[in-house]
Amino acid sequence: MSTRTLIRGGLVITAAEELHADVLIEDGRIAALAARGTRAAEAWSADRVIDASDKYVIPGGVDAHTHMELPFGGTFASDSFETGTRAAAWGGTTTIVDFAVQTVGRSLREGLDAWYAKADGKCAVDYAFHMILSDVNERTLKEMDLLVEEGITSFKLFMAYPGVFYSDDGQILRAMQRSAANGGLIMMHAENGIAIDVLVEQALQRGETDPRYHGEVRKVLLEAEATHRAIQLARVAGAPLYVVHVSAEEAVAELAAARDKGLDVFGETCPQYLFLSTDNLAEPDFEGAKYVCSTPLRPREHQAALWRGLRTNDLQVVSTDHCPFCFTGQKELGRGDFSKIPNGLPGVENRMDLLHQAVLDGHITRRRWIEIACATPARMFGLYPKKGTIAPGADADVVVYDPAATQVISAETHHMNVDYSAYEGKQVTGRVETVLSRGELVIDQREFTGRAGHGRYTPRATCQYLG
Amino acid sequence: MSTRTLIRGGLVITAAEELHADVLIEDGRIAALAARGTRAAEAWSADRVIDASDKYVIPGGVDAHTHMELPFGGTFASDSFETGTRAAAWGGTTTIVDFAVQTVGRSLREGLDAWYAKADGKCAVDYAFHMILSDVNERTLKEMDLLVEEGITSFKLFMAYPGVFYSDDGQILRAMQRSAANGGLIMMHAENGIAIDVLVEQALQRGETDPRYHGEVRKVLLEAEATHRAIQLARVAGAPLYVVHVSAEEAVAELAAARDKGLDVFGETCPQYLFLSTDNLAEPDFEGAKYVCSTPLRPREHQAALWRGLRTNDLQVVSTDHCPFCFTGQKELGRGDFSKIPNGLPGVENRMDLLHQAVLDGHITRRRWIEIACATPARMFGLYPKKGTIAPGADADVVVYDPAATQVISAETHHMNVDYSAYEGKQVTGRVETVLSRGELVIDQREFTGRAGHGRYTPRATCQYLG
Amino acid sequence: MSTRTLIRGGLVITAAEELHADVLIEDGRIAALAARGTRAAEAWSADRVIDASDKYVIPGGVDAHTHMELPFGGTFASDSFETGTRAAAWGGTTTIVDFAVQTVGRSLREGLDAWYAKADGKCAVDYAFHMILSDVNERTLKEMDLLVEEGITSFKLFMAYPGVFYSDDGQILRAMQRSAANGGLIMMHAENGIAIDVLVEQALQRGETDPRYHGEVRKVLLEAEATHRAIQLARVAGAPLYVVHVSAEEAVAELAAARDKGLDVFGETCPQYLFLSTDNLAEPDFEGAKYVCSTPLRPREHQAALWRGLRTNDLQVVSTDHCPFCFTGQKELGRGDFSKIPNGLPGVENRMDLLHQAVLDGHITRRRWIEIACATPARMFGLYPKKGTIAPGADADVVVYDPAATQVISAETHHMNVDYSAYEGKQVTGRVETVLSRGELVIDQREFTGRAGHGRYTPRATCQYLG
Amino acid sequence: MSTRTLIRGGLVITAAEELHADVLIEDGRIAALAARGTRAAEAWSADRVIDASDKYVIPGGVDAHTHMELPFGGTFASDSFETGTRAAAWGGTTTIVDFAVQTVGRSLREGLDAWYAKADGKCAVDYAFHMILSDVNERTLKEMDLLVEEGITSFKLFMAYPGVFYSDDGQILRAMQRSAANGGLIMMHAENGIAIDVLVEQALQRGETDPRYHGEVRKVLLEAEATHRAIQLARVAGAPLYVVHVSAEEAVAELAAARDKGLDVFGETCPQYLFLSTDNLAEPDFEGAKYVCSTPLRPREHQAALWRGLRTNDLQVVSTDHCPFCFTGQKELGRGDFSKIPNGLPGVENRMDLLHQAVLDGHITRRRWIEIACATPARMFGLYPKKGTIAPGADADVVVYDPAATQVISAETHHMNVDYSAYEGKQVTGRVETVLSRGELVIDQREFTGRAGHGRYTPRATCQYLG
Repeated sequence: MSTRTLIRGGLVITAAEELHADVLIEDGRIAALAARGTRAAEAWSADRVIDASDKYVIPGGVDAHTHMELPFGGTFASDSFETGTRAAAWGGTTTIVDFAVQTVGRSLREGLDAWYAKADGKCAVDYAFHMILSDVNERTLKEMDLLVEEGITSFKLFMAYPGVFYSDDGQILRAMQRSAANGGLIMMHAENGIAIDVLVEQALQRGETDPRYHGEVRKVLLEAEATHRAIQLARVAGAPLYVVHVSAEEAVAELAAARDKGLDVFGETCPQYLFLSTDNLAEPDFEGAKYVCSTPLRPREHQAALWRGLRTNDLQVVSTDHCPFCFTGQKELGRGDFSKIPNGLPGVENRMDLLHQAVLDGHITRRRWIEIACATPARMFGLYPKKGTIAPGADADVVVYDPAATQVISAETHHMNVDYSAYEGKQVTGRVETVLSRGELVIDQREFTGRAGHGRYTPRATCQYLG
Repeated sequence: MSTRTLIRGGLVITAAEELHADVLIEDGRIAALAARGTRAAEAWSADRVIDASDKYVIPGGVDAHTHMELPFGGTFASDSFETGTRAAAWGGTTTIVDFAVQTVGRSLREGLDAWYAKADGKCAVDYAFHMILSDVNERTLKEMDLLVEEGITSFKLFMAYPGVFYSDDGQILRAMQRSAANGGLIMMHAENGIAIDVLVEQALQRGETDPRYHGEVRKVLLEAEATHRAIQLARVAGAPLYVVHVSAEEAVAELAAARDKGLDVFGETCPQYLFLSTDNLAEPDFEGAKYVCSTPLRPREHQAALWRGLRTNDLQVVSTDHCPFCFTGQKELGRGDFSKIPNGLPGVENRMDLLHQAVLDGHITRRRWIEIACATPARMFGLYPKKGTIAPGADADVVVYDPAATQVISAETHHMNVDYSAYEGKQVTGRVETVLSRGELVIDQREFTGRAGHGRYTPRATCQYLG
Repeated sequence: MSTRTLIRGGLVITAAEELHADVLIEDGRIAALAARGTRAAEAWSADRVIDASDKYVIPGGVDAHTHMELPFGGTFASDSFETGTRAAAWGGTTTIVDFAVQTVGRSLREGLDAWYAKADGKCAVDYAFHMILSDVNERTLKEMDLLVEEGITSFKLFMAYPGVFYSDDGQILRAMQRSAANGGLIMMHAENGIAIDVLVEQALQRGETDPRYHGEVRKVLLEAEATHRAIQLARVAGAPLYVVHVSAEEAVAELAAARDKGLDVFGETCPQYLFLSTDNLAEPDFEGAKYVCSTPLRPREHQAALWRGLRTNDLQVVSTDHCPFCFTGQKELGRGDFSKIPNGLPGVENRMDLLHQAVLDGHITRRRWIEIACATPARMFGLYPKKGTIAPGADADVVVYDPAATQVISAETHHMNVDYSAYEGKQVTGRVETVLSRGELVIDQREFTGRAGHGRYTPRATCQYLG
Repeated sequence: MSTRTLIRGGLVITAAEELHADVLIEDGRIAALAARGTRAAEAWSADRVIDASDKYVIPGGVDAHTHMELPFGGTFASDSFETGTRAAAWGGTTTIVDFAVQTVGRSLREGLDAWYAKADGKCAVDYAFHMILSDVNERTLKEMDLLVEEGITSFKLFMAYPGVFYSDDGQILRAMQRSAANGGLIMMHAENGIAIDVLVEQALQRGETDPRYHGEVRKVLLEAEATHRAIQLARVAGAPLYVVHVSAEEAVAELAAARDKGLDVFGETCPQYLFLSTDNLAEPDFEGAKYVCSTPLRPREHQAALWRGLRTNDLQVVSTDHCPFCFTGQKELGRGDFSKIPNGLPGVENRMDLLHQAVLDGHITRRRWIEIACATPARMFGLYPKKGTIAPGADADVVVYDPAATQVISAETHHMNVDYSAYEGKQVTGRVETVLSRGELVIDQREFTGRAGHGRYTPRATCQYLG
């Protein structure tokens, strides 16, 4: 059955344009846009008409960094693909790119298949996968080529977490060389984990066990160092590089220096680095554990550099690194030893709203909001123009956004499967009203009308910022 | 009478998107875009249908830096608004922003009115004006406010040409302060003209009179110095800054440093700096005079930095600084004294083609081509979204561009009123086929179908990149 | 008559060494040094033996920036060569380099002869001259060559003070070119005076007349800008450059960048920038006027950058810019209009002590103290090895310094001819005990034993840091 | 028996002064200096008078980086302490600081004792030791403290050579933290050996086995990266850092950036990087093997940056990294596999002459020659003022140097125990004529008059450049 939906009267905002235009959807795709009041617009009829007067009509968000059900530190991230993608939809995000994990000693294939299985039939919105390389060797290097062909076109490496996900500089160089050849994009967790582990051990020996020490040992200089090193290795390999969850001003400076040289080096930050700080890590009664993630939250002064980087395009993407662990029973594993606190924060539901608030706060423009949250992540990871924009031919992943509504963020009302909110009590202006995924209503005037299994796995092309 | 034009089958390229879409024009504006083959597209009918199969459908070019009929060095630029805008249309440019000139000792009003008069009824495509401030004083500072309200929202100052257009640092600071208050944008010719004039005099005293010495005395360091100084003065004033015709790697570095700091500093370069070099200035038999302009052509090595700046967005705009003087009778004024050669080059007709060639040469992407040549100049100078894009609601300034046709650039075939081409004999791939200006055919399959007077004066909003 | 003086038992400190050595003086020069207790040392006898046990034996200070009797703002600096050099001696400084001033429209010769006459027969310690170029033209450029031959090997130019000392960039470039040829060294007052005068006028129009506005209008960015510009002009000219009285962190950064490039660019700062700040300029009841000098005092945060620059050798010299004006009758000329306050501070007597205090405060080492206050200024201005060190063959300008004595700086006790001290009430550790000038006692255990006329004019070689 | 030696008529050159002075030596130490022709000088008599007319009298060289008898790659450096120190003396070097080596799994003590034993009774000139840490662990960290007290105040770590000397970033951080506490100085071989080993393996797999590939795989960017990383780790540890054998312009830039920040980061380069290049590595018939060392020789363009670094004091020391292997039988181990060529070059005999040639070539001044070759290495490694200068109280390690004599460097005539010279056939001006070590003649007018065992082990104080 073919259906037609018409979104009337809104302000269409994309990364490039702000248009008073009506949007016509046919068969799950954007068929056409017409300037409001033209004969062309007036001529349209549809099965379903959505009135977007006084609302924004924006592309569904693309969250390029989530970890549903991630095994970490002896437990699992608390959102399943079902709960996590439903929460994403509530937050105006219609595509997630999650990380399949290779187990050390096993093949990429095996890890990837496990993630396919976890997500299959569960998702409320579309999804795709990056691959975490835990074990770079001759065999897995060859597998990378196959995965790129299959639509897994990005690979995450860790300079942190020795003994778990850590790759040494030789492994990193080899993986980068391979990606330079096969078109893949290396995503880097850039922290000098070898040095950090020394500082962790020393802190614990000194009896510094509270969550705030997590922030103190994972030093700014060790994030900047690893960022610089990753860039140099990428230059040696002739490969592009995407640095995940950049949190420190000094790391932004390394990215800026790389881009001044014209290198294909990209940077992502996350809402937690833009809105939270070491002040949160220092909250009493072990509450700081709620904010333990790596890279860690930084002193408040770093936020200005991150916003500036987003404005100057030294940072291109805001993802969530959504990786929730309940305070009760999970975060609590690290009482008495901050190094045992599972690393990660919930956020997939809050990203679009927090960034809209940043528009109101004057940090970014409306178009830049859509660019960093929708268009650029889609291009970066080969999903454009299906995802990330409202343009003829694109998937009809559309959000009707009320820029004037206010809300208070709270675990009481959020839809993520986690017992706290990192932004508890924060009031923001702006709210998702209606969400379409490939033309189907997933959220309809703040009612969830979607279903597990609507979301499709989406193979990806290679990074669209290269050559 | 209301007309409808439909452009069918082309690849629509804007700064943000590449779409297989049909474009519907109503009453001189873009009414709608529809994905090819959708029912929405199929349903459209029109008075005139343009077949754009295998062609690009791009926004008409916006050339933000032309000097039609400019008085300079005792003569006048050889293109009138009539010949110049016709040539622009031939080259796929549908909007020019020319420079009205204040005469020292006279009001801005008087200068502006003279330029209104020169252009009135003559232009083949739309036009707007910047204002050259030759004499910053209490009275002209006040006039700036009025001009901004009138739609003249940018003001050019010169750190070069003492005794002619030159403003000293105090005048520059005052004008910047005023623009910070009234929303205007200062455009700067950044060369240390006071120091250059010393070097000119010394070169002539040594008998160095050939055109190539023009390039030697106008030193890279003196462009970089002035660029740095203009940026610092803008910081003191709290004002944005747009640096025109950037030619030297060291000047790009100053812009990059400013943008790393998050300052509102913008840079423009021109095709002559991207494609020509001091090799041309050194051509024998006074032929070098054809390439005399300021800032001057630089050694070939600087080109890579300019292309890199365009890719990294440290340079945002490519304009022509179109200012033609015939070799015979005009450039010849400087035989025996390079300082008497009128400064300027023809180029308004060649810009879109040269930049398309740059796409083929791998310097920039297709979308970036449109961004630097159409969208960004439109936004920079307050013409967006009427100009610079193809989107519902925009003026229907549209070019059907054949990306496969080849042509040889030559004075024999060009339409600019000047007796030589700076790119004589250069073969490029890509050619303008059809041009619409506000929905009217100006070039129809390589026939000029426009007319003097079709082009309208277009008042401008203020710079759209400012907070 | 030939005399021999032996200084026994002290710790000899030079820029390079710290030695337990006895110093033998013959006929006004250092004849020999011998390690304490050697047979060579024991064998010496002398007409006069000075016991320096527990004392430092250091070279007499070289203050390369003083303005005795300077005409400025309708009055004259209050120290004559007689009172000023006597105060210098009290402070352990045995050589000053003062500035002869060219009057606009007159020859250098005339200005220099006037200064020869002012100083002749008046000085307690040796002296030399720089020349201020107020009027760079063909004639004065030629005179520069003659002055270099005569021992006036450095020339000060001003980018500030339009209408008084100001040179434009063309004049600066010509003077630099000339110095590149004749071996002279250009000393630059680096502030963008043209821009500053605009800000001064605007501040006064707003009724901002207090001394603290002097600091606000002379902006850090305008010192940094001028510093950058002077460096670029020096590069164009192929000339070395010495920037006087650097006060802002951003200006130090320009010097550091220049030295990273290997350029012959040198920087001087002064005790007032190291120890005082805008807090002083803001002292109530017009007391801030005591601290009005240009470049102005800066916010306290800049001090760390200056100390760091002194440690990294991005700043090489600490001079005083001694230019005293009495609070009563002189500084008061600017009541109600900060721009009428004579610019300048007393300091020639305090420099050695304040820098010794900086040793105790951990900012610099003992040897660096002697380097920046004695050895480097002597080398920079062609006085080495006669001045600035204790080495066989050098002039016997020697200070016996008590590192343990404490003193309180005060106008009550100082010897400068000015009615206030910029450091009133500051307690410092360390004090000059005995001073010899060419072997003669000028201060003998805190008694003045010198005389006007002992000090000799000392022609200078060219800068000794140039290849 | 007490003896007196008098060196008459020479030009005494130290890092700080150039003096026409006579030098009196008593009991192995410099007793006194007197200006030529003074009564003090005339009064001296001595057992032995050396006529230094028309000669330089300079401090004996301090070579802070030698590897006598180093076990490497299955063989031993070909100079013993006896032959190596004799050659040093011939070359005007009177102190070497050699590297004692810890064996993995053994104590520092054991390694150090082995080196004491090797050198004991063998050396022609004085010597001291650094310690190579091959195995940083709790036990060896504690041993560091003891060694510092014993006079072994510097410790070398390797970021290269995995499986041999390599320390990981955690070990480096721990050793730096320890040195920050005990006053030791970490010396770093800064190359990313983990990445390099990947490139080595890949090159060999491609059949790239010639010596020149040694230069290609050890990339400039991987030296710069490691330099940057070492600096960041030192900042985290709060420790000073000395980077050995800097060869690449990009590494110098890292050092310059560190010093601009005021960090205690020091850099050493070697004559081979200043005078040789990858051209040598590419010499045919396996001759390139003679020039295989790590860091490797670089393309000729890097030399200018090294000379500039020496002038700007971003590089402070020139040592030799003397580590000779005979071409026949040793270098030949790497025929068919460049990675098996023993790494190292002879040079201890050539350093002072090559750097004097650099004075004549205009790269450095005479005083800077002495500073980088004598005074600074002595201060850097706690040997000042005994070593590195000619001053009352210093050890009488003195060279009479003929600045006008010419010589041709050749294995035929050199005294190092190695069958080739890296500078074969190079003509230089300047030659050592006479050498005293603690007052005793070791070379007397180009006759070796020294003996094995004269040279004494010299315990060292900590680095004298630290607060």
